[in-house]
Amino acid sequence: MIRIGILGYGNLGKGIESAITQNADMELKAVFTRRNPDSVTIRTVGVPVLHTDKLQEMKEEIDVLVLCGGSATDLPEQTPEYAKYFNVVDSFDTHARIPEHFANVDKAAKESGKTAVISVGWDPGMFSLNRLYANAILPEGKDYTFWGKGVSQGHSDAIRRVEGVKNGKQYTIPVEAALEAVRRGENPELTTREKHIRECFVVAEEGADLAKIESEIKNMPNYFADYDTTVHFITEEELEREHSGIPHGGFVLRSGVTGMNREHKHLIEYSLKLDSNPEFTASVIAAYVRAAYRMNKEGMCGCKTVFDIPPAYLCAQSGEELRKNLL
Amino acid sequence: MIRIGILGYGNLGKGIESAITQNADMELKAVFTRRNPDSVTIRTVGVPVLHTDKLQEMKEEIDVLVLCGGSATDLPEQTPEYAKYFNVVDSFDTHARIPEHFANVDKAAKESGKTAVISVGWDPGMFSLNRLYANAILPEGKDYTFWGKGVSQGHSDAIRRVEGVKNGKQYTIPVEAALEAVRRGENPELTTREKHIRECFVVAEEGADLAKIESEIKNMPNYFADYDTTVHFITEEELEREHSGIPHGGFVLRSGVTGMNREHKHLIEYSLKLDSNPEFTASVIAAYVRAAYRMNKEGMCGCKTVFDIPPAYLCAQSGEELRKNLL
Repeated sequence: MIRIGILGYGNLGKGIESAITQNADMELKAVFTRRNPDSVTIRTVGVPVLHTDKLQEMKEEIDVLVLCGGSATDLPEQTPEYAKYFNVVDSFDTHARIPEHFANVDKAAKESGKTAVISVGWDPGMFSLNRLYANAILPEGKDYTFWGKGVSQGHSDAIRRVEGVKNGKQYTIPVEAALEAVRRGENPELTTREKHIRECFVVAEEGADLAKIESEIKNMPNYFADYDTTVHFITEEELEREHSGIPHGGFVLRSGVTGMNREHKHLIEYSLKLDSNPEFTASVIAAYVRAAYRMNKEGMCGCKTVFDIPPAYLCAQSGEELRKNLL
Repeated sequence: MIRIGILGYGNLGKGIESAITQNADMELKAVFTRRNPDSVTIRTVGVPVLHTDKLQEMKEEIDVLVLCGGSATDLPEQTPEYAKYFNVVDSFDTHARIPEHFANVDKAAKESGKTAVISVGWDPGMFSLNRLYANAILPEGKDYTFWGKGVSQGHSDAIRRVEGVKNGKQYTIPVEAALEAVRRGENPELTTREKHIRECFVVAEEGADLAKIESEIKNMPNYFADYDTTVHFITEEELEREHSGIPHGGFVLRSGVTGMNREHKHLIEYSLKLDSNPEFTASVIAAYVRAAYRMNKEGMCGCKTVFDIPPAYLCAQSGEELRKNLL
């Protein structure tokens, strides 16, 4: 059994808890929180919730610690810190800062002899892997990544900061015509506006100036100004009823050519359609927990990403079974 | 530079030759043939065509030998034999015999200290990898593989063996309604007939009994009897004009659930649309040639499949560049 600790019990931590129940070789050992542990109720019977102060004491009880904090401030500190004592997996997703995060975590994990896997999930994660495989296969080609349809947490937060907005949710939606042009092998050059549209569902405060809210959202730099954005005003009840899920997904495509005269076109497409973004991310992490555990047992320490890990390490089945059943 | 030898100059061997021109770190050193070398003209200037007798002499000149023979009789003998002297990559695709082939090749490669990668291509190959990743992520779910639209060599051969048939080509086509049911998360149980249809383009000999040919094809056991098959009689000119390509492709899907109550559905889909089946297969092989070369340099010998190889080994870029550009 792989004994797992979860640090942070938000949506992602809850997803890890439920993913563990789907993997017979995994066991949840403890959930760690910076809050008062008494205020946190988890769904797995008999598993303690402990304060992060207790992490050190639990060193020998935990094979892999899953870090479920945020990428902005939590993980840049937590992952290098806890890699000193634990095999760890995180979902660090600030693409631009991955090289720096990798270096910090690698140093800590190499010193401790632990295995740390960073940036696990679907983007970064499965989407990155598909970009890599497709680039390796078709060196002459063009990459496209589309996100959605799905809820963007950052954009939903941005809406809620607008004056007069009580609540709101934003969906990122790929432009179907752009996707189709890529699929036809046209290799289009696509602007930001041509790739995605943004759809907002907003609950306004009573008496708020709706036209002003709509204009403020649509013209918000970085978040909405470069997109075709639609704003729908709805009631709190409708928001709750129709938009309380956290779906997401997207598409990674590579269009390339082969042949002595580059006369043959090829299209590689990978796509995800997810009812629950955090639970899917957690499911990817669970597979990489298994890899981290095994790699550490085999003496492969330091920081790893999805690029460094032999696929077979993700599965509970033996190499023999995998070759027989899946190859 | 990775110095590559090609054994067998059919469609796949030609695809390897052209893939090498797309990878700046690769160089074609020689093409080997069992035919009279004078009868084989290749497209790369200055590269010799040699008889397979000369392979042994070229041991020091070649880093990786790509075996482009057939899976029925060539590769079961060639891969274990040449793994004694070379790092090798093959595209052995008889799924049921992979365990046996693996064992034979592993023994030879471990004894020689060489690295052998078997069953590389898209199925087995990229499709297998996608089945593995999707199974690792969604342990509770259902797999689907659809092939096509594409030319099936085996089925085209079967048509051409029918009395009165001069020439013919067969397309395997996924049933769109079945694909859509899978995409909707319905987890259908699909019969052979419900998954694929078979479309045949046949050139009959003059005076042949067309009704008899059509009936013989449609009722051919294993090949066509279990499918909805359509037969079109066309002229040799039309066959040449419209059906001389070797396109293929297909879809790998996994539909699964997550959540404490398995209440969230997820769909992972991977698909390929290929103008040239052999050139795409060759492009996948080229990437695994790079991996075989590197793994051997690092002392990882024996038989490997796509499941055993860290993705980063496929790319010419460094780990640092990959993390920066693709993660």
